[in-house]
Amino acid sequence: MSLLLRSMVDGIEQSQIGVLDRGLHFGDGVFRTLLVINGQPQDLERQLQRLADDAARIGLQAPDASTLTRQATEICVGQNRAALKLLLTRAQEAAGYQASVNHCRSVLLLRPLRNHPPHFWNDGIAVRICAMRLANNPTLAGIKHLNRLEQVLARAEWTDESIAEGLMLDTQDRLIEGISSNLFFVRDGVLHTPNLSRCGVSGVMREMILEAAPAYTRDIRIADFGIDDLLGADECFVCNSVIRIWPISRLVSREPAQSWPVGPVTQKLQDKLGAAWQRKK
Amino acid sequence: MSLLLRSMVDGIEQSQIGVLDRGLHFGDGVFRTLLVINGQPQDLERQLQRLADDAARIGLQAPDASTLTRQATEICVGQNRAALKLLLTRAQEAAGYQASVNHCRSVLLLRPLRNHPPHFWNDGIAVRICAMRLANNPTLAGIKHLNRLEQVLARAEWTDESIAEGLMLDTQDRLIEGISSNLFFVRDGVLHTPNLSRCGVSGVMREMILEAAPAYTRDIRIADFGIDDLLGADECFVCNSVIRIWPISRLVSREPAQSWPVGPVTQKLQDKLGAAWQRKK
Repeated sequence: MSLLLRSMVDGIEQSQIGVLDRGLHFGDGVFRTLLVINGQPQDLERQLQRLADDAARIGLQAPDASTLTRQATEICVGQNRAALKLLLTRAQEAAGYQASVNHCRSVLLLRPLRNHPPHFWNDGIAVRICAMRLANNPTLAGIKHLNRLEQVLARAEWTDESIAEGLMLDTQDRLIEGISSNLFFVRDGVLHTPNLSRCGVSGVMREMILEAAPAYTRDIRIADFGIDDLLGADECFVCNSVIRIWPISRLVSREPAQSWPVGPVTQKLQDKLGAAWQRKK
Repeated sequence: MSLLLRSMVDGIEQSQIGVLDRGLHFGDGVFRTLLVINGQPQDLERQLQRLADDAARIGLQAPDASTLTRQATEICVGQNRAALKLLLTRAQEAAGYQASVNHCRSVLLLRPLRNHPPHFWNDGIAVRICAMRLANNPTLAGIKHLNRLEQVLARAEWTDESIAEGLMLDTQDRLIEGISSNLFFVRDGVLHTPNLSRCGVSGVMREMILEAAPAYTRDIRIADFGIDDLLGADECFVCNSVIRIWPISRLVSREPAQSWPVGPVTQKLQDKLGAAWQRKK
Protein backbone atom coordinates (compact mmCIF):
# COMPACT_ATOMS: atom_id res chain seq x y z
CA MET A 1 0.00 0.00 0.00
CA SER A 2 1.32 3.41 -0.88
CA LEU A 3 2.25 5.62 2.07
CA LEU A 4 1.15 8.73 0.25
CA LEU A 5 -1.96 9.30 -1.85
CA ARG A 6 -1.34 12.95 -2.62
CA SER A 7 0.79 15.79 -1.28
CA MET A 8 0.90 19.53 -1.69
CA VAL A 9 3.53 22.11 -0.71
CA ASP A 10 2.35 25.72 -0.48
CA GLY A 11 -0.70 24.75 -2.50
CA ILE A 12 1.25 23.13 -5.34
CA GLU A 13 0.96 19.39 -5.91
CA GLN A 14 4.45 18.05 -5.18
CA SER A 15 6.11 15.43 -3.02
CA GLN A 16 9.42 17.10 -2.19
CA ILE A 17 10.55 20.02 -0.08
CA GLY A 18 13.81 21.96 -0.10
CA VAL A 19 16.66 20.64 2.03
CA LEU A 20 16.91 23.99 3.86
CA ASP A 21 13.45 23.62 5.38
CA ARG A 22 13.57 24.45 9.07
CA GLY A 23 11.05 21.70 9.72
CA LEU A 24 13.78 19.24 8.74
CA HIS A 25 16.66 20.99 10.49
CA PHE A 26 15.04 21.92 13.77
CA GLY A 27 11.51 20.49 13.86
CA ASP A 28 10.58 24.15 13.58
CA GLY A 29 6.89 23.79 12.82
CA VAL A 30 3.54 22.41 13.93
CA PHE A 31 1.04 19.90 12.60
CA ARG A 32 -2.42 18.40 12.87
CA THR A 33 -3.81 15.11 11.55
CA LEU A 34 -7.41 14.88 10.40
CA LEU A 35 -9.80 12.11 9.52
CA VAL A 36 -11.19 12.44 5.98
CA ILE A 37 -14.65 11.00 5.27
CA ASN A 38 -16.36 11.28 1.90
CA GLY A 39 -13.91 13.91 0.71
CA GLN A 40 -14.39 16.05 3.83
CA PRO A 41 -11.61 16.68 6.37
CA GLN A 42 -13.43 16.39 9.71
CA ASP A 43 -13.54 19.28 12.18
CA LEU A 44 -11.50 21.33 9.72
CA GLU A 45 -12.31 24.78 11.07
CA ARG A 46 -11.38 23.82 14.61
CA GLN A 47 -8.27 21.97 13.49
CA LEU A 48 -7.05 24.96 11.50
CA GLN A 49 -7.69 27.23 14.47
CA ARG A 50 -5.62 24.99 16.76
CA LEU A 51 -2.91 24.72 14.12
CA ALA A 52 -2.73 28.53 13.93
CA ASP A 53 -2.77 28.81 17.75
CA ASP A 54 0.14 26.40 18.02
CA ALA A 55 2.01 28.17 15.22
CA ALA A 56 1.57 31.48 17.06
CA ARG A 57 3.04 29.96 20.21
CA ILE A 58 6.28 29.33 18.34
CA GLY A 59 6.20 32.75 16.69
CA LEU A 60 4.97 31.53 13.32
CA GLN A 61 2.16 33.25 11.41
CA ALA A 62 -0.04 30.59 9.84
CA PRO A 63 -1.45 31.18 6.35
CA ASP A 64 -5.05 32.43 6.22
CA ALA A 65 -7.58 29.81 7.24
CA SER A 66 -9.29 30.35 3.89
CA THR A 67 -6.09 29.42 2.03
CA LEU A 68 -5.54 26.26 4.08
CA THR A 69 -9.23 25.36 3.81
CA ARG A 70 -9.00 25.59 0.02
CA GLN A 71 -5.86 23.43 -0.06
CA ALA A 72 -7.29 20.86 2.36
CA THR A 73 -10.58 20.65 0.48
CA GLU A 74 -8.85 20.30 -2.86
CA ILE A 75 -6.47 17.54 -1.81
CA CYS A 76 -9.32 15.49 -0.30
CA VAL A 77 -11.57 15.54 -3.38
CA GLY A 78 -12.82 12.06 -4.20
CA GLN A 79 -11.23 10.42 -1.16
CA ASN A 80 -13.68 8.22 0.66
CA ARG A 81 -11.63 7.55 3.78
CA ALA A 82 -8.14 8.83 4.44
CA ALA A 83 -5.93 10.70 6.89
CA LEU A 84 -4.85 14.26 6.13
CA LYS A 85 -1.72 15.60 7.82
CA LEU A 86 -1.24 19.37 7.73
CA LEU A 87 2.22 20.68 8.54
CA LEU A 88 3.36 24.26 8.84
CA THR A 89 7.10 24.91 8.87
CA ARG A 90 9.15 28.07 9.20
CA ALA A 91 10.42 27.23 5.82
CA GLN A 92 13.85 28.53 4.96
CA GLU A 93 16.76 27.96 7.21
CA ALA A 94 18.95 31.01 7.56
CA ALA A 95 22.46 30.49 8.87
CA GLY A 96 21.63 28.80 12.15
CA TYR A 97 18.80 29.02 14.61
CA GLN A 98 17.88 32.62 13.89
CA ALA A 99 14.94 32.86 11.49
CA SER A 100 15.58 35.84 9.27
CA VAL A 101 13.05 34.97 6.59
CA ASN A 102 9.79 34.09 8.27
CA HIS A 103 7.96 32.34 5.46
CA CYS A 104 5.43 29.80 6.71
CA ARG A 105 5.31 26.76 4.43
CA SER A 106 2.27 24.52 4.30
CA VAL A 107 2.73 20.82 3.60
CA LEU A 108 -0.37 18.68 3.17
CA LEU A 109 -0.15 14.91 2.98
CA LEU A 110 -3.07 12.67 2.22
CA ARG A 111 -2.48 9.10 3.32
CA PRO A 112 -4.46 5.87 3.44
CA LEU A 113 -6.03 5.05 6.78
CA ARG A 114 -4.30 2.33 8.74
CA ASN A 115 -6.27 -0.84 8.70
CA HIS A 116 -6.99 -1.36 12.39
CA PRO A 117 -9.30 -4.26 13.31
CA PRO A 118 -12.84 -3.34 14.44
CA HIS A 119 -12.26 -4.96 17.84
CA PHE A 120 -9.92 -2.07 18.72
CA TRP A 121 -13.05 0.10 18.80
CA ASN A 122 -15.54 -2.51 20.04
CA ASP A 123 -13.61 -4.46 22.65
CA GLY A 124 -10.76 -2.10 23.45
CA ILE A 125 -7.02 -2.20 23.01
CA ALA A 126 -4.03 -3.50 24.92
CA VAL A 127 -1.60 -0.79 26.03
CA ARG A 128 1.78 -0.74 27.73
CA ILE A 129 3.66 1.78 29.84
CA CYS A 130 6.68 3.12 27.95
CA ALA A 131 10.12 3.37 29.50
CA MET A 132 10.79 6.52 27.50
CA ARG A 133 9.71 9.63 29.40
CA LEU A 134 8.38 13.02 28.36
CA ALA A 135 10.55 15.98 29.39
CA ASN A 136 8.86 18.92 31.05
CA ASN A 137 9.04 22.29 29.39
CA PRO A 138 6.01 24.53 30.02
CA THR A 139 6.92 26.80 27.09
CA LEU A 140 6.38 23.94 24.65
CA ALA A 141 3.70 22.02 26.58
CA GLY A 142 0.49 21.30 24.71
CA ILE A 143 1.85 22.32 21.31
CA LYS A 144 1.59 19.79 18.49
CA HIS A 145 5.06 20.66 17.17
CA LEU A 146 7.52 18.74 15.03
CA ASN A 147 9.93 17.76 17.85
CA ARG A 148 8.69 14.22 18.34
CA LEU A 149 11.76 12.14 19.03
CA GLU A 150 10.43 11.13 22.45
CA GLN A 151 7.41 9.58 20.74
CA VAL A 152 9.58 7.87 18.12
CA LEU A 153 11.77 6.25 20.76
CA ALA A 154 8.76 5.28 22.88
CA ARG A 155 7.12 3.57 19.88
CA ALA A 156 10.35 1.71 19.13
CA GLU A 157 10.13 -0.09 22.46
CA TRP A 158 7.86 -2.88 21.21
CA THR A 159 6.96 -4.72 18.03
CA ASP A 160 4.04 -6.89 19.20
CA GLU A 161 1.22 -5.61 16.99
CA SER A 162 -1.41 -6.73 19.49
CA ILE A 163 -0.34 -3.80 21.67
CA ALA A 164 -1.97 -0.81 20.02
CA GLU A 165 -0.65 2.08 22.05
CA GLY A 166 1.97 3.03 24.65
CA LEU A 167 1.24 5.30 27.59
CA MET A 168 3.88 7.83 28.52
CA LEU A 169 4.90 9.24 31.87
CA ASP A 170 6.83 12.45 32.35
CA THR A 171 10.23 12.46 34.07
CA GLN A 172 8.40 12.94 37.42
CA ASP A 173 6.28 9.74 37.07
CA ARG A 174 3.12 11.59 36.11
CA LEU A 175 0.94 9.82 33.57
CA ILE A 176 0.52 12.19 30.60
CA GLU A 177 -0.82 10.66 27.38
CA GLY A 178 -0.51 7.98 24.76
CA ILE A 179 2.28 8.17 22.18
CA SER A 180 -0.14 9.44 19.54
CA SER A 181 -3.26 9.92 21.63
CA ASN A 182 -4.66 11.64 24.69
CA LEU A 183 -5.73 9.63 27.72
CA PHE A 184 -8.97 9.65 29.73
CA PHE A 185 -10.32 7.53 32.55
CA VAL A 186 -13.55 7.43 34.50
CA ARG A 187 -13.94 6.77 38.20
CA ASP A 188 -17.19 7.07 40.14
CA GLY A 189 -18.77 8.89 37.22
CA VAL A 190 -16.03 11.55 37.04
CA LEU A 191 -14.04 11.93 33.83
CA HIS A 192 -10.31 12.37 34.43
CA THR A 193 -7.61 13.50 32.02
CA PRO A 194 -4.02 14.56 32.69
CA ASN A 195 -2.94 18.17 33.05
CA LEU A 196 -0.86 19.12 29.98
CA SER A 197 0.73 22.30 31.32
CA ARG A 198 4.26 20.89 31.54
CA CYS A 199 4.39 18.49 28.59
CA GLY A 200 2.09 16.55 26.28
CA VAL A 201 0.04 17.43 23.23
CA SER A 202 -3.38 19.00 23.48
CA GLY A 203 -5.40 17.27 20.78
CA VAL A 204 -8.62 18.40 19.13
CA MET A 205 -10.37 15.13 20.04
CA ARG A 206 -9.42 15.68 23.71
CA GLU A 207 -10.98 19.13 23.49
CA MET A 208 -14.15 17.80 21.87
CA ILE A 209 -14.46 15.09 24.52
CA LEU A 210 -14.11 17.66 27.29
CA GLU A 211 -16.88 19.69 25.65
CA ALA A 212 -19.20 16.71 25.19
CA ALA A 213 -18.51 15.04 28.54
CA PRO A 214 -20.90 17.00 30.80
CA ALA A 215 -23.82 15.17 29.16
CA TYR A 216 -22.39 11.79 30.25
CA THR A 217 -20.38 12.36 33.44
CA ARG A 218 -21.09 14.15 36.68
CA ASP A 219 -17.78 16.01 36.76
CA ILE A 220 -14.47 16.51 34.98
CA ARG A 221 -11.03 16.53 36.62
CA ILE A 222 -7.95 17.81 34.80
CA ALA A 223 -5.05 17.23 37.19
CA ASP A 224 -1.78 15.38 37.78
CA PHE A 225 -2.18 11.61 37.94
CA GLY A 226 0.05 8.57 38.33
CA ILE A 227 -0.27 4.99 37.15
CA ASP A 228 -2.16 4.07 40.33
CA ASP A 229 -4.94 6.48 39.42
CA LEU A 230 -5.37 4.68 36.12
CA LEU A 231 -5.32 1.27 37.84
CA GLY A 232 -8.18 2.38 40.06
CA ALA A 233 -10.36 3.54 37.15
CA ASP A 234 -13.71 2.00 36.21
CA GLU A 235 -13.11 2.55 32.50
CA CYS A 236 -10.46 4.25 30.38
CA PHE A 237 -9.79 5.17 26.77
CA VAL A 238 -7.41 6.95 24.41
CA CYS A 239 -8.38 9.31 21.61
CA ASN A 240 -7.07 11.18 18.62
CA SER A 241 -8.68 12.79 15.61
CA VAL A 242 -8.13 9.84 13.28
CA ILE A 243 -8.99 6.83 15.44
CA ARG A 244 -11.44 8.93 17.45
CA ILE A 245 -11.88 6.78 20.61
CA TRP A 246 -10.38 3.42 21.54
CA PRO A 247 -11.37 1.86 24.88
CA ILE A 248 -8.41 0.51 26.83
CA SER A 249 -9.13 -3.08 27.82
CA ARG A 250 -5.74 -4.23 29.09
CA LEU A 251 -2.49 -2.93 30.50
CA VAL A 252 0.06 -5.59 29.62
CA SER A 253 3.43 -4.21 30.73
CA ARG A 254 2.81 -5.03 34.41
CA GLU A 255 2.34 -8.18 36.45
CA PRO A 256 -0.45 -8.95 37.01
CA ALA A 257 -1.93 -7.48 33.83
CA GLN A 258 -4.77 -5.10 34.57
CA SER A 259 -8.01 -5.10 32.62
CA TRP A 260 -11.01 -2.82 32.27
CA PRO A 261 -14.46 -3.28 30.71
CA VAL A 262 -15.60 -1.08 27.82
CA GLY A 263 -17.57 1.31 30.00
CA PRO A 264 -20.76 3.29 29.42
CA VAL A 265 -19.08 6.72 29.29
CA THR A 266 -16.60 5.48 26.70
CA GLN A 267 -19.40 4.00 24.58
CA LYS A 268 -21.52 7.12 24.73
CA LEU A 269 -18.58 9.28 23.71
CA GLN A 270 -17.85 6.86 20.86
CA ASP A 271 -21.48 7.12 19.73
CA LYS A 272 -21.27 10.91 19.85
CA LEU A 273 -17.81 11.50 18.36
CA GLY A 274 -16.71 8.33 16.58
CA ALA A 275 -17.08 7.41 12.95
CA ALA A 276 -19.86 4.83 12.64
CA TRP A 277 -18.00 2.52 10.24
CA GLN A 278 -15.03 2.17 12.58
CA ARG A 279 -16.98 -0.09 14.96
CA LYS A 280 -18.62 -2.28 12.34
CA LYS A 281 -17.55 -5.91 12.61
CA MET B 1 24.48 35.62 -0.47
CA SER B 2 23.15 32.16 -1.25
CA LEU B 3 22.25 30.04 1.76
CA LEU B 4 23.34 26.89 0.01
CA LEU B 5 26.44 26.27 -2.07
CA ARG B 6 25.82 22.60 -2.76
CA SER B 7 23.71 19.80 -1.35
CA MET B 8 23.58 16.05 -1.65
CA VAL B 9 20.98 13.49 -0.63
CA ASP B 10 22.16 9.88 -0.30
CA GLY B 11 25.20 10.82 -2.35
CA ILE B 12 23.25 12.37 -5.23
CA GLU B 13 23.53 16.09 -5.89
CA GLN B 14 20.03 17.44 -5.19
CA SER B 15 18.38 20.11 -3.09
CA GLN B 16 15.06 18.46 -2.21
CA ILE B 17 13.94 15.60 -0.02
CA GLY B 18 10.68 13.66 0.01
CA VAL B 19 7.83 15.03 2.10
CA LEU B 20 7.59 11.73 4.00
CA ASP B 21 11.05 12.14 5.51
CA ARG B 22 10.94 11.40 9.23
CA GLY B 23 13.45 14.17 9.81
CA LEU B 24 10.73 16.60 8.77
CA HIS B 25 7.86 14.90 10.57
CA PHE B 26 9.47 14.04 13.88
CA GLY B 27 12.99 15.48 13.92
CA ASP B 28 13.93 11.81 13.73
CA GLY B 29 17.61 12.17 12.95
CA VAL B 30 20.97 13.56 14.03
CA PHE B 31 23.47 16.04 12.64
CA ARG B 32 26.93 17.55 12.85
CA THR B 33 28.30 20.79 11.46
CA LEU B 34 31.92 21.00 10.30
CA LEU B 35 34.30 23.76 9.33
CA VAL B 36 35.69 23.36 5.81
CA ILE B 37 39.14 24.78 5.05
CA ASN B 38 40.85 24.40 1.68
CA GLY B 39 38.40 21.74 0.58
CA GLN B 40 38.88 19.70 3.74
CA PRO B 41 36.12 19.12 6.30
CA GLN B 42 37.94 19.50 9.64
CA ASP B 43 38.05 16.66 12.18
CA LEU B 44 36.01 14.56 9.78
CA GLU B 45 36.81 11.14 11.21
CA ARG B 46 35.91 12.19 14.73
CA GLN B 47 32.77 14.01 13.56
CA LEU B 48 31.55 10.95 11.66
CA GLN B 49 32.21 8.77 14.69
CA ARG B 50 30.14 11.07 16.92
CA LEU B 51 27.42 11.25 14.27
CA ALA B 52 27.25 7.45 14.17
CA ASP B 53 27.30 7.26 17.99
CA ASP B 54 24.36 9.68 18.21
CA ALA B 55 22.50 7.82 15.45
CA ALA B 56 22.95 4.57 17.37
CA ARG B 57 21.48 6.17 20.50
CA ILE B 58 18.23 6.74 18.61
CA GLY B 59 18.34 3.29 17.04
CA LEU B 60 19.55 4.44 13.63
CA GLN B 61 22.34 2.66 11.78
CA ALA B 62 24.55 5.28 10.14
CA PRO B 63 25.96 4.59 6.67
CA ASP B 64 29.56 3.36 6.57
CA ALA B 65 32.09 6.01 7.52
CA SER B 66 33.80 5.40 4.17
CA THR B 67 30.59 6.27 2.30
CA LEU B 68 30.05 9.47 4.26
CA THR B 69 33.74 10.38 3.97
CA ARG B 70 33.52 10.05 0.18
CA GLN B 71 30.35 12.19 0.05
CA ALA B 72 31.78 14.84 2.39
CA THR B 73 35.06 15.01 0.53
CA GLU B 74 33.35 15.27 -2.84
CA ILE B 75 30.96 18.05 -1.83
CA CYS B 76 33.81 20.14 -0.40
CA VAL B 77 36.07 20.00 -3.46
CA GLY B 78 37.31 23.46 -4.38
CA GLN B 79 35.72 25.19 -1.38
CA ASN B 80 38.17 27.45 0.37
CA ARG B 81 36.13 28.17 3.47
CA ALA B 82 32.62 26.91 4.18
CA ALA B 83 30.41 25.09 6.68
CA LEU B 84 29.34 21.51 6.02
CA LYS B 85 26.23 20.22 7.73
CA LEU B 86 25.75 16.45 7.75
CA LEU B 87 22.28 15.15 8.60
CA LEU B 88 21.15 11.58 8.98
CA THR B 89 17.42 10.92 9.04
CA ARG B 90 15.35 7.76 9.45
CA ALA B 91 14.07 8.52 6.04
CA GLN B 92 10.65 7.22 5.20
CA GLU B 93 7.73 7.84 7.45
CA ALA B 94 5.53 4.82 7.87
CA ALA B 95 2.02 5.40 9.17
CA GLY B 96 2.88 7.16 12.41
CA TYR B 97 5.71 6.98 14.88
CA GLN B 98 6.63 3.37 14.24
CA ALA B 99 9.56 3.07 11.86
CA SER B 100 8.91 0.03 9.72
CA VAL B 101 11.46 0.82 7.02
CA ASN B 102 14.71 1.73 8.68
CA HIS B 103 16.54 3.42 5.82
CA CYS B 104 19.07 5.98 7.00
CA ARG B 105 19.18 8.95 4.64
CA SER B 106 22.24 11.21 4.45
CA VAL B 107 21.77 14.89 3.65
CA LEU B 108 24.87 17.02 3.16
CA LEU B 109 24.63 20.79 2.89
CA LEU B 110 27.57 23.01 2.06
CA ARG B 111 26.98 26.60 3.07
CA PRO B 112 28.94 29.83 3.12
CA LEU B 113 30.52 30.74 6.44
CA ARG B 114 28.78 33.53 8.31
CA ASN B 115 30.77 36.70 8.20
CA HIS B 116 31.46 37.31 11.88
CA PRO B 117 33.76 40.24 12.73
CA PRO B 118 37.32 39.36 13.88
CA HIS B 119 36.74 41.06 17.24
CA PHE B 120 34.42 38.18 18.20
CA TRP B 121 37.55 36.01 18.33
CA ASN B 122 40.03 38.66 19.49
CA ASP B 123 38.10 40.67 22.06
CA GLY B 124 35.25 38.33 22.92
CA ILE B 125 31.50 38.41 22.48
CA ALA B 126 28.51 39.74 24.38
CA VAL B 127 26.09 37.07 25.56
CA ARG B 128 22.72 37.04 27.25
CA ILE B 129 20.85 34.57 29.43
CA CYS B 130 17.82 33.18 27.57
CA ALA B 131 14.38 32.98 29.14
CA MET B 132 13.73 29.77 27.21
CA ARG B 133 14.82 26.71 29.19
CA LEU B 134 16.14 23.30 28.23
CA ALA B 135 13.97 20.37 29.32
CA ASN B 136 15.67 17.46 31.07
CA ASN B 137 15.49 14.06 29.47
CA PRO B 138 18.51 11.85 30.16
CA THR B 139 17.60 9.49 27.30
CA LEU B 140 18.15 12.28 24.78
CA ALA B 141 20.82 14.26 26.65
CA GLY B 142 24.04 14.94 24.77
CA ILE B 143 22.67 13.82 21.40
CA LYS B 144 22.92 16.29 18.52
CA HIS B 145 19.45 15.38 17.23
CA LEU B 146 16.99 17.25 15.05
CA ASN B 147 14.58 18.31 17.83
CA ARG B 148 15.83 21.86 18.23
CA LEU B 149 12.76 23.95 18.89
CA GLU B 150 14.09 25.04 22.27
CA GLN B 151 17.10 26.56 20.53
CA VAL B 152 14.93 28.20 17.86
CA LEU B 153 12.75 29.88 20.48
CA ALA B 154 15.75 30.91 22.56
CA ARG B 155 17.39 32.54 19.53
CA ALA B 156 14.16 34.38 18.72
CA GLU B 157 14.37 36.26 22.02
CA TRP B 158 16.63 39.01 20.68
CA THR B 159 17.53 40.78 17.45
CA ASP B 160 20.44 42.99 18.57
CA GLU B 161 23.27 41.66 16.39
CA SER B 162 25.89 42.84 18.86
CA ILE B 163 24.82 39.96 21.11
CA ALA B 164 26.46 36.94 19.53
CA GLU B 165 25.14 34.09 21.65
CA GLY B 166 22.54 33.21 24.26
CA LEU B 167 23.28 31.01 27.25
CA MET B 168 20.63 28.49 28.25
CA LEU B 169 19.63 27.16 31.65
CA ASP B 170 17.69 23.97 32.19
CA THR B 171 14.30 24.00 33.92
CA GLN B 172 16.14 23.60 37.28
CA ASP B 173 18.25 26.79 36.85
CA ARG B 174 21.39 24.92 35.94
CA LEU B 175 23.59 26.62 33.34
CA ILE B 176 24.00 24.19 30.43
CA GLU B 177 25.34 25.64 27.18
CA GLY B 178 25.04 28.27 24.48
CA ILE B 179 22.24 28.00 21.92
CA SER B 180 24.65 26.68 19.31
CA SER B 181 27.78 26.24 21.41
CA ASN B 182 29.17 24.61 24.51
CA LEU B 183 30.26 26.69 27.48
CA PHE B 184 33.48 26.72 29.49
CA PHE B 185 34.84 28.91 32.25
CA VAL B 186 38.07 29.06 34.19
CA ARG B 187 38.45 29.81 37.89
CA ASP B 188 41.72 29.57 39.82
CA GLY B 189 43.30 27.68 36.95
CA VAL B 190 40.56 25.03 36.84
CA LEU B 191 38.58 24.55 33.63
CA HIS B 192 34.84 24.12 34.24
CA THR B 193 32.13 22.93 31.87
CA PRO B 194 28.55 21.87 32.58
CA ASN B 195 27.48 18.28 33.01
CA LEU B 196 25.38 17.24 29.99
CA SER B 197 23.81 14.09 31.41
CA ARG B 198 20.27 15.51 31.59
CA CYS B 199 20.14 17.84 28.58
CA GLY B 200 22.44 19.72 26.22
CA VAL B 201 24.48 18.78 23.19
CA SER B 202 27.90 17.21 23.48
CA GLY B 203 29.92 18.90 20.74
CA VAL B 204 33.13 17.73 19.12
CA MET B 205 34.88 21.00 19.93
CA ARG B 206 33.95 20.55 23.62
CA GLU B 207 35.50 17.10 23.49
CA MET B 208 38.68 18.41 21.82
CA ILE B 209 38.97 21.17 24.41
CA LEU B 210 38.65 18.66 27.24
CA GLU B 211 41.42 16.60 25.64
CA ALA B 212 43.72 19.59 25.10
CA ALA B 213 43.05 21.34 28.41
CA PRO B 214 45.43 19.43 30.72
CA ALA B 215 48.35 21.24 29.03
CA TYR B 216 46.92 24.63 30.03
CA THR B 217 44.91 24.12 33.23
CA ARG B 218 45.63 22.44 36.54
CA ASP B 219 42.32 20.57 36.66
CA ILE B 220 39.01 20.02 34.90
CA ARG B 221 35.58 20.01 36.56
CA ILE B 222 32.50 18.70 34.77
CA ALA B 223 29.59 19.33 37.14
CA ASP B 224 26.31 21.18 37.69
CA PHE B 225 26.71 24.96 37.75
CA GLY B 226 24.47 28.00 38.06
CA ILE B 227 24.80 31.56 36.81
CA ASP B 228 26.69 32.55 39.96
CA ASP B 229 29.46 30.13 39.10
CA LEU B 230 29.89 31.84 35.76
CA LEU B 231 29.84 35.29 37.39
CA GLY B 232 32.70 34.23 39.64
CA ALA B 233 34.87 33.01 36.76
CA ASP B 234 38.22 34.53 35.78
CA GLU B 235 37.61 33.90 32.07
CA CYS B 236 34.97 32.14 30.00
CA PHE B 237 34.30 31.13 26.42
CA VAL B 238 31.92 29.29 24.10
CA CYS B 239 32.88 26.86 21.37
CA ASN B 240 31.59 24.93 18.42
CA SER B 241 33.19 23.23 15.45
CA VAL B 242 32.64 26.14 13.05
CA ILE B 243 33.49 29.20 15.13
CA ARG B 244 35.94 27.14 17.19
CA ILE B 245 36.38 29.37 20.30
CA TRP B 246 34.88 32.77 21.15
CA PRO B 247 35.87 34.39 24.45
CA ILE B 248 32.91 35.79 26.36
CA SER B 249 33.63 39.40 27.26
CA ARG B 250 30.25 40.60 28.53
CA LEU B 251 26.99 39.31 29.96
CA VAL B 252 24.42 41.96 29.02
CA SER B 253 21.07 40.58 30.16
CA ARG B 254 21.69 41.48 33.82
CA GLU B 255 22.16 44.68 35.77
CA PRO B 256 24.93 45.48 36.32
CA ALA B 257 26.41 43.93 33.19
CA GLN B 258 29.27 41.59 33.97
CA SER B 259 32.51 41.55 32.02
CA TRP B 260 35.50 39.25 31.72
CA PRO B 261 38.94 39.67 30.15
CA VAL B 262 40.09 37.42 27.31
CA GLY B 263 42.07 35.08 29.54
CA PRO B 264 45.26 33.10 29.01
CA VAL B 265 43.60 29.67 28.97
CA THR B 266 41.09 30.84 26.35
CA GLN B 267 43.89 32.27 24.19
CA LYS B 268 46.03 29.16 24.43
CA LEU B 269 43.08 26.96 23.46
CA GLN B 270 42.34 29.30 20.54
CA ASP B 271 45.98 29.03 19.42
CA LYS B 272 45.78 25.26 19.64
CA LEU B 273 42.32 24.61 18.16
CA GLY B 274 41.20 27.73 16.30
CA ALA B 275 41.59 28.58 12.62
CA ALA B 276 44.36 31.16 12.27
CA TRP B 277 42.49 33.40 9.80
CA GLN B 278 39.51 33.81 12.16
CA ARG B 279 41.44 36.12 14.48
CA LYS B 280 43.08 38.26 11.78
CA LYS B 281 41.99 41.90 12.01
